[in-house]
Amino acid sequence: MVVRAAVAGASGYAGGELLRLLLAHPEVEIGALTGHSNAGQALGSLQPHLRPLAGRVLEPTTAEVLAGHDVVFLALPHGQSAAVAEQLGDEVLVVDMGADFRLKDAGDWETFYGSPHAGTWPYGLPELPGGRTALAGVKRIAVPGCYPTAVSLALFPAYEAGIAEPEAVVVAASGTSGAGKAVKPHLLGSEVMGNMTPYGVGGGHRHTPEMIQNLSAAAGQPVTVSFTPTLAPMPRGILATCSAKAKPGVSTESLRAVYGKAFADEPFVELLPEGQWPATAAVYGSNAVQVQVAHDPAAGRIVVVCAIDNLAKGTAGGALQSMNIALGLPEDTGLSTIGVAP
Amino acid sequence: MVVRAAVAGASGYAGGELLRLLLAHPEVEIGALTGHSNAGQALGSLQPHLRPLAGRVLEPTTAEVLAGHDVVFLALPHGQSAAVAEQLGDEVLVVDMGADFRLKDAGDWETFYGSPHAGTWPYGLPELPGGRTALAGVKRIAVPGCYPTAVSLALFPAYEAGIAEPEAVVVAASGTSGAGKAVKPHLLGSEVMGNMTPYGVGGGHRHTPEMIQNLSAAAGQPVTVSFTPTLAPMPRGILATCSAKAKPGVSTESLRAVYGKAFADEPFVELLPEGQWPATAAVYGSNAVQVQVAHDPAAGRIVVVCAIDNLAKGTAGGALQSMNIALGLPEDTGLSTIGVAP
Amino acid sequence: MVVRAAVAGASGYAGGELLRLLLAHPEVEIGALTGHSNAGQALGSLQPHLRPLAGRVLEPTTAEVLAGHDVVFLALPHGQSAAVAEQLGDEVLVVDMGADFRLKDAGDWETFYGSPHAGTWPYGLPELPGGRTALAGVKRIAVPGCYPTAVSLALFPAYEAGIAEPEAVVVAASGTSGAGKAVKPHLLGSEVMGNMTPYGVGGGHRHTPEMIQNLSAAAGQPVTVSFTPTLAPMPRGILATCSAKAKPGVSTESLRAVYGKAFADEPFVELLPEGQWPATAAVYGSNAVQVQVAHDPAAGRIVVVCAIDNLAKGTAGGALQSMNIALGLPEDTGLSTIGVAP
Amino acid sequence: MVVRAAVAGASGYAGGELLRLLLAHPEVEIGALTGHSNAGQALGSLQPHLRPLAGRVLEPTTAEVLAGHDVVFLALPHGQSAAVAEQLGDEVLVVDMGADFRLKDAGDWETFYGSPHAGTWPYGLPELPGGRTALAGVKRIAVPGCYPTAVSLALFPAYEAGIAEPEAVVVAASGTSGAGKAVKPHLLGSEVMGNMTPYGVGGGHRHTPEMIQNLSAAAGQPVTVSFTPTLAPMPRGILATCSAKAKPGVSTESLRAVYGKAFADEPFVELLPEGQWPATAAVYGSNAVQVQVAHDPAAGRIVVVCAIDNLAKGTAGGALQSMNIALGLPEDTGLSTIGVAP
Repeated sequence: MVVRAAVAGASGYAGGELLRLLLAHPEVEIGALTGHSNAGQALGSLQPHLRPLAGRVLEPTTAEVLAGHDVVFLALPHGQSAAVAEQLGDEVLVVDMGADFRLKDAGDWETFYGSPHAGTWPYGLPELPGGRTALAGVKRIAVPGCYPTAVSLALFPAYEAGIAEPEAVVVAASGTSGAGKAVKPHLLGSEVMGNMTPYGVGGGHRHTPEMIQNLSAAAGQPVTVSFTPTLAPMPRGILATCSAKAKPGVSTESLRAVYGKAFADEPFVELLPEGQWPATAAVYGSNAVQVQVAHDPAAGRIVVVCAIDNLAKGTAGGALQSMNIALGLPEDTGLSTIGVAP
Repeated sequence: MVVRAAVAGASGYAGGELLRLLLAHPEVEIGALTGHSNAGQALGSLQPHLRPLAGRVLEPTTAEVLAGHDVVFLALPHGQSAAVAEQLGDEVLVVDMGADFRLKDAGDWETFYGSPHAGTWPYGLPELPGGRTALAGVKRIAVPGCYPTAVSLALFPAYEAGIAEPEAVVVAASGTSGAGKAVKPHLLGSEVMGNMTPYGVGGGHRHTPEMIQNLSAAAGQPVTVSFTPTLAPMPRGILATCSAKAKPGVSTESLRAVYGKAFADEPFVELLPEGQWPATAAVYGSNAVQVQVAHDPAAGRIVVVCAIDNLAKGTAGGALQSMNIALGLPEDTGLSTIGVAP
Repeated sequence: MVVRAAVAGASGYAGGELLRLLLAHPEVEIGALTGHSNAGQALGSLQPHLRPLAGRVLEPTTAEVLAGHDVVFLALPHGQSAAVAEQLGDEVLVVDMGADFRLKDAGDWETFYGSPHAGTWPYGLPELPGGRTALAGVKRIAVPGCYPTAVSLALFPAYEAGIAEPEAVVVAASGTSGAGKAVKPHLLGSEVMGNMTPYGVGGGHRHTPEMIQNLSAAAGQPVTVSFTPTLAPMPRGILATCSAKAKPGVSTESLRAVYGKAFADEPFVELLPEGQWPATAAVYGSNAVQVQVAHDPAAGRIVVVCAIDNLAKGTAGGALQSMNIALGLPEDTGLSTIGVAP
Repeated sequence: MVVRAAVAGASGYAGGELLRLLLAHPEVEIGALTGHSNAGQALGSLQPHLRPLAGRVLEPTTAEVLAGHDVVFLALPHGQSAAVAEQLGDEVLVVDMGADFRLKDAGDWETFYGSPHAGTWPYGLPELPGGRTALAGVKRIAVPGCYPTAVSLALFPAYEAGIAEPEAVVVAASGTSGAGKAVKPHLLGSEVMGNMTPYGVGGGHRHTPEMIQNLSAAAGQPVTVSFTPTLAPMPRGILATCSAKAKPGVSTESLRAVYGKAFADEPFVELLPEGQWPATAAVYGSNAVQVQVAHDPAAGRIVVVCAIDNLAKGTAGGALQSMNIALGLPEDTGLSTIGVAP
């Protein structure tokens, strides 16, 4: 099979990571690469780590340029995918790495994004209950947000198993690439090095309704999520520390049993051996997910920690994994659990 | 007043930071400096940033060397302070920067530290209710742990005001100096840069009972704390994200009123203006504490974030602040709220 | 003495560092603070580490606002100082932290900065031969560039003593604050962390003619400098590695003698003990300069390494040191050799 | 072809990187993994990023364990390779990633390493003149040091072309993994973050004679090298800034012509387009080498900057590249020029 893929938004971090992974995908041929303000520039100056593509020139993001591919990946700013997608035809697989089609509730979308809701596409997190079935053969995929990927994988087994109260508390640290390549003063190297700081505190982060959507589905009842993201002095990685009150009778042993079963056949998610804790450095550049659990009897809570690479499993790797499923390819084609460390 | 001060454990990070601050303290004269394996070495090679002390040679940590000072600071590994302190006499002010005398409950000590309890000294967190009274004129001070300093300052106002349920959830990120200068593989630069990882998850961290002690006192009832510390890729700083279910009727406005009142007269703790969030970089090298609060109505929780410098307000600055009170000096003598940034 | 000081450009990194130091200067009272695009904003949101000034509001940079002070510091983009300075009157001390008045040769200025030369002011590097005399009582001071500060201090003793050939090779690493607070893509945290990269290679950096000016004066003959700056993944600090062919008969011993003599009475510059090498972390936040020398007999070169804090001794600390001299204050008033580490 | 490979020293950084690359090599099957103090431990706890090997247990480093493989990689501390290698038989390909067999001059070895010289093996830098011929079909390979890899690639074209004086000046920055996984105080995260510091200044670094050996061979005459390595706050990467006086008539144009020709057919080394400079982040995790050149007419020097990943092309990738040649495989089998960024 030769899958011809176009990438809209090839100059950003998500686009660049996708291209890195596509270059290693045995069934994909890289087609058109587009940009907005960078159209006309060679990729070599924008993504100097992608040497095989150094001579490729970015084209403008138009339906004409994106036509004639088997798959089109949209790595565009939030709110820009719908206009492009509707011009692409129903026979092409469109994978949206933005937020536009993730939420089912139009009211949530409007509250958190402040614009009309564009719709809901099949959700690209295969590890969720029913996740793979929902992606088989589809022509539209909404790639999850990076935080919701980590948090949903951390907590859905507990909620599916009914062992946790439906009030989750999540504090997550993210590397700076999660904020994208736009130049903002607080993202300067001088500002972020040596610094930890929160943002979107108190329920304001746009990824919150997406977590609630996933965890409520797993629980079969509404789940609340107190979510505090923090910006960490590293380029990549998410470490999500998640907890909820344990239902009676839960122990670390029973917790491990639940999680061991949930991830037993997963190619990318691993419940670590007892005593070992997730580390973002261990999943750097890979599609791997590290999870570890603990029951804190004194506080009466379960604690689940999850580490992913925000650009890989959290964005571009997750996109490829879902594409593989949609196209009927082995799910792990072109994806790896091997990180780059130290 | 001339206060002659000795520092036991002058080669470590806590000892070094204390010396940096003592050099700027107008009433203190630096006396004996001691070390263990480093005795006999010049401080210039061990703490090259302290140039005025470069020629000072470390002496062994003995009662003879430490005798004849007005204040003795103990920056020793946990469990070693008691033996030294009991030889120092009742008239000298002994400030223990280790954990030995922080806990009131001997059972907690034995559970978390695995050795007999040495006792309980006046607790060096002046901002706590009754904190200053407890330190006036004392001859023994137990300096709080770095995490308990941040977490107690973040949450005691809510518990004192009775606006939060007694089940706190805390996730904190610490710079690597919090782990000390002992050479351990996971503390190598190659391991920590680009990495976030938790430790002591599920209630195992030794600072947990100290937080519970402080918050329960403020609440007037037992408070549980689910505490997850994480190691962040930066040399200094603690960012503590703390939350608890809000009692009925709480709003961000009422929350701000409670915290504004609690810190109104505090020289070092600041409730930030609305919209501004604590950043460890802003308190780097200073005794300042940044606090911000939010009420999350959807999750029904209050969220309090606190940033301190773990070595300054979290250890050596806190020690000096308490020393000032014990000696009857103005509390902020030699201490600053000005950080070094960027 | 009360010195009333205004700071033009108070929102940038140089302005912020100057304010941090001015707050600790016992003779200075901080007057007007001005900004350009940030005029009207409170300093607390722009420089959150300077809590005592948090409520101060930036005024526009005009002659009216800057009038009525004893000292005016200009922390403006290159090329903007002259227009402001000429409105300030001859009786006020104007300290320019930009490049405008550093170079003596108008042709050099025009070649490297591409605009008409504004003139030459007394040069604020007191450690150079005749440096203090040139600053006594002056009303105009040109603060050196950060790289020229490190490189000139590293090499002038060798050239003054005539022990090195007049062809210097310098490779220097700088923290990102040296590039200022302007938001540029290559200065994003995601780009700079984990990255070392050169810029201005081959003689193009604007600080090159300033180094040549200083070293040629010390040598009494023209000196060439091959200068390669590199951007390092840290917020502050310059490490300059400088070398030149040794004149016959030079040894590490004779080299140490020359440098020991050159810096014997310097309050801020230290020739480190043998075996210890400069580290930017050791001078972080301080006005200290660490220097170490070696003779490499196989390569026939002397190697001199120098570490400074680019914002402190390299900019704002150096500015204050020269201000002290111009005003007749003790040179080290308000300045320290104590770094913040780790 | 199935190549069965054993790795002695699998728990260190070089060993870990080699395993990461071997896992992606289509012709290699990973056999025995050995360690010293870590023998008996599972690799999952030592190299948590290598999930496919997590269950593999380290065996002791003995001839018996290493027997029966087609290739044995030695990632051992300097001085330990010879004793192992001589027990392995002449028919097995032994690739030494340590220093033991790099130097041709026994006196140089003894001067810089202080022990008897074990011998000289074919040198694994294929890009050097005659480099590929020297490796074809061999059974012993000495992998170059990381600094010599970067510096030799940067300067050999100039010396081979006779356009530079035989006195090179090199200042290089290295990530901390270059110092290995041994726990030493100056390698703690708290010490290295925010810090640049030199070491081995004045000709003392053990990689100096290896550079001289390579460059003198290219020049056909003795070349001296003034080499100053510096430790940079990043886990990986080498940026080498190299310069030498230009012979008469050299220009940036002629320099580009020489380097363009030297690297025209190289699969891994790239002369960057004009205006783009090497960055360690761009080669992170890859076997790519970025080179850029400039002629500085004012200083009369050529400047060549080179970036590599010290663990990849600088150690494990270079080892695999040479193994491919020795085994008659395509040179780039299992190796990539695609970096992981940001």
